[in-house]
Amino acid sequence: MTEGKTAAMTLVTNHESDDASFLADFATLSTFGATAGGGVDRQAATEPDGAQRAWLHTWLTERGFDVHYDRIGNQFGLSTTVPGAPYVLTGSHLDSQPLGGRYDGAYGVLASAHAAHRALRRWNESGETPTYNVAVVNWFNEEGCRFKPSMMGSSVFTGKMDIDDALATTDPAGVSVKTALTSIDCLGTYDGPDVAAYAEIHIEQGRGLEDSGTTIGLVESTWAARKYHVVVRGEQSHTGSTIMADRRDALLGASLLVVAARELAEKHTVFPLHTSVSEMTIEPNSPVVVAREVRMHLDIRSPDEAYLDAAAKELAESIPQIASRARVTIEQNETHGWGVASFHCAGVELARDAAESLGVRHGRVMTVAGHDSVNMKDVTPTVMLFVPSVDGISHNEGEFTQDTDVCIGTKLLADVVYRAMSGELDEGSTRT
Amino acid sequence: MTEGKTAAMTLVTNHESDDASFLADFATLSTFGATAGGGVDRQAATEPDGAQRAWLHTWLTERGFDVHYDRIGNQFGLSTTVPGAPYVLTGSHLDSQPLGGRYDGAYGVLASAHAAHRALRRWNESGETPTYNVAVVNWFNEEGCRFKPSMMGSSVFTGKMDIDDALATTDPAGVSVKTALTSIDCLGTYDGPDVAAYAEIHIEQGRGLEDSGTTIGLVESTWAARKYHVVVRGEQSHTGSTIMADRRDALLGASLLVVAARELAEKHTVFPLHTSVSEMTIEPNSPVVVAREVRMHLDIRSPDEAYLDAAAKELAESIPQIASRARVTIEQNETHGWGVASFHCAGVELARDAAESLGVRHGRVMTVAGHDSVNMKDVTPTVMLFVPSVDGISHNEGEFTQDTDVCIGTKLLADVVYRAMSGELDEGSTRT
Repeated sequence: MTEGKTAAMTLVTNHESDDASFLADFATLSTFGATAGGGVDRQAATEPDGAQRAWLHTWLTERGFDVHYDRIGNQFGLSTTVPGAPYVLTGSHLDSQPLGGRYDGAYGVLASAHAAHRALRRWNESGETPTYNVAVVNWFNEEGCRFKPSMMGSSVFTGKMDIDDALATTDPAGVSVKTALTSIDCLGTYDGPDVAAYAEIHIEQGRGLEDSGTTIGLVESTWAARKYHVVVRGEQSHTGSTIMADRRDALLGASLLVVAARELAEKHTVFPLHTSVSEMTIEPNSPVVVAREVRMHLDIRSPDEAYLDAAAKELAESIPQIASRARVTIEQNETHGWGVASFHCAGVELARDAAESLGVRHGRVMTVAGHDSVNMKDVTPTVMLFVPSVDGISHNEGEFTQDTDVCIGTKLLADVVYRAMSGELDEGSTRT
Repeated sequence: MTEGKTAAMTLVTNHESDDASFLADFATLSTFGATAGGGVDRQAATEPDGAQRAWLHTWLTERGFDVHYDRIGNQFGLSTTVPGAPYVLTGSHLDSQPLGGRYDGAYGVLASAHAAHRALRRWNESGETPTYNVAVVNWFNEEGCRFKPSMMGSSVFTGKMDIDDALATTDPAGVSVKTALTSIDCLGTYDGPDVAAYAEIHIEQGRGLEDSGTTIGLVESTWAARKYHVVVRGEQSHTGSTIMADRRDALLGASLLVVAARELAEKHTVFPLHTSVSEMTIEPNSPVVVAREVRMHLDIRSPDEAYLDAAAKELAESIPQIASRARVTIEQNETHGWGVASFHCAGVELARDAAESLGVRHGRVMTVAGHDSVNMKDVTPTVMLFVPSVDGISHNEGEFTQDTDVCIGTKLLADVVYRAMSGELDEGSTRT
């Protein structure tokens, strides 16, 4: 009895110590690029991004991981206990939006580091040998705010984007990815590990889990999304003296399109439809010159692919009328997009089992936002987990997830990684 | 007969030579900051602005004018033939919009330099002594694109703007007016001349003269104008995952306001109403973050003051509804404006007489755009002349005025300056 009690207490103490250690590290991580409003600003390959990568490098090295950088700056921490075996890879991204939140991406990277460390400890304590090794990854430029497109690191890693195109991409100041990565000393030559499976945890960035009182979301599919680059071309003229009927106002055309996109979302109520324009480049952007050109991004998403197709068609059909009203031309090019794509059933099942055994309330969800896991699921069995976001606030300094949820998520991820290292996600494997 | 014929021919030759000389100088002036599209880009106190100022400095000096710079960088060329007497000042501005036209402002400065030179020659040839001296001015930063507000140089000169506020104004890169003026060596200590009268010529920047087949517009008043700084405040969030009903989209609020401003102009047809938004600053301006803030300028103008007041009231009243629809707050502050303000009757009459004696088709017009003369008319008798703009195109590389109109305008301005130097604009003077 006494021995049993002690063992149980030790276990509890271990968990409390794990949680405290995680929260302390998360607090430290949140100091990099910290903003006055309680958020972070550490866009890809900026100085704060470099500083947090150096900190993670040290953290991993101190715990026996070998750190390598590939040719697009993805940061890998490898633990090789089974020489020659592939790796269960777990991670997310440390880069943030300008005035972004502390959790988006960074939580997933730190949870992965702690989860990999705990899984290794558990294998070590068990005296058994895992089927696979484990590796932690911090993907480069998931956010896509400084360098477009988003999910650049995982896109190159999965062969969806050409490495040379990615390295040549420039930020608005004309600095290339290659130059920026070199400046933070994160451009490497590593080819990346052989991957047996991938696991990622992320904040939900929506209110679904919170509203339903669910702690863990088991991501089973993505919403469909289409992204467009739109160019509205008018003619530069004097804002004061040019008579209204003569104007070819590109900003009027762009504004009409912003309003039309919102109206489209408002009238489509069978399935949710999200439409967004949040960035514009206005030329010449002078208070006394009618805009000659506006370039902008337009993004539409829905959980139903056919519904999204219909909405996209309706939007495209509204464009000639908008162009005519503002006397401008409007060019709409689809830059990228994805359909409703499923995550691996075996991964969802494994995560469900792990959540059940932890006694955590869970549910199947879709992801509206893109994540590196959306790329990874196309090349390897992938598990994607969500923890709640308070009020669904994200890409905002006020982004917040409760410490208890953060800690439960990390604990669950550690179990998922442990199970995946045993080969539970292998095709034909029988989970027990 | 022979002598008479020779004299007449000499006169014609003189005029042709004056015109050729003017057009040659204008072609040279147009090379400063020349753009590929046939326009110019020489924003206030940039390198091309400094270069054209140096060129004008030399031009004036070679013709006997003394060049001085005041504390806001206004460039004066003084000819003092009557020691102690005030000056008839004539000028405009050399700075341009980005990708602006060759004529806007620059035509007026060069026409003034030539007009002053010709008026002096005429006084010299007549053997008589003028009542007033003559001076040429190139006002600093009329355009207001790099440094706001517009008409900065003449506003400081006429006491409408504080010199220290003006010098401390910064461009988007954080460079102050003081630093920029120092960098082009145009920050002086001159207090400016005693002014007896002011004359300016400018392209119309509208289609009124061209459409009515009129060569010279005699500006008798301004349109009324109101300029607003508008701040739309929403909340930063994820463009993909934030549900539409939760969004507080500042760019949607701004776009609704752009559309509302245009609709206001379209429904007001009793008098013309011009409404414009042509500049926005969007924060954070990321393709995946709902905009938290948009700052923009809104400009409304009408030839009828009461009509403008009513339209301004209607616009203000539409704002709460727009704010509510986009779930944002909208702050609208009037930054400056002017009523329908008359130019001096005596000045319009003098210019009309001069146009009659040249046999040029002329008409009374209003100015929609602001000009330095709008400031000057409040402190001294002021004559403002327009020449036609082809198709009304302005603030555009395609801005154009026919050589014949350019030359007639300069000739008329020379006569106006000559007459003003004789004291014709003095209160109580009897024009002959």
